[in-house]
Amino acid sequence: MTTKKPNEILISRAKRTEDYVLDVIVMFNQGYDEVELKGVGNSIYKAVEVYNLLKDRLGDGIKLEKTDIGSEVKDRRRISYISIRLKRVY
Amino acid sequence: MTTKKPNEILISRAKRTEDYVLDVIVMFNQGYDEVELKGVGNSIYKAVEVYNLLKDRLGDGIKLEKTDIGSEVKDRRRISYISIRLKRVY
Ligand SMILES: [Zn+2]
Repeated sequence: MTTKKPNEILISRAKRTEDYVLDVIVMFNQGYDEVELKGVGNSIYKAVEVYNLLKDRLGDGIKLEKTDIGSEVKDRRRISYISIRLKRVY
Repeated sequence: MTTKKPNEILISRAKRTEDYVLDVIVMFNQGYDEVELKGVGNSIYKAVEVYNLLKDRLGDGIKLEKTDIGSEVKDRRRISYISIRLKRVY
């Protein structure tokens, strides 16, 4: 869970929701077929928002392949996460 | 999406995470086999927290059957939601 996969975007307070939406669109344009949004703690809500904004913009161009929720240890604390896997549909 | 199903718990700011955990345990004890946690907007994070606390306490006694994310219209505004369906395992 800790090492970031190339097609994984860690959603945090660092950027606005719209910035993450653009990051995903850029990754799809770069040829990634699947992108995984990972939201931890308070950013879980933002990860779902990013998904919904992408769905608004790309419609049937993307498919929600899998949504995982759980908890992981971070700085010796257990914290909730969500992982949203999106697939490009041509 | 608006009408609440009997086995659905709408997670909101109204109660603490631990209270929702107890609500679910009570429902399982009342004989419900499945309980659905519904978190909207800022309460999406809390819904995932409730799930993780339940998992800590009940372990293999519950199974995460399905996690849905999306958006719905509420007071003429579109708002993100998460729906977490839990199944009792005997
Ligand atoms: Zn896939």
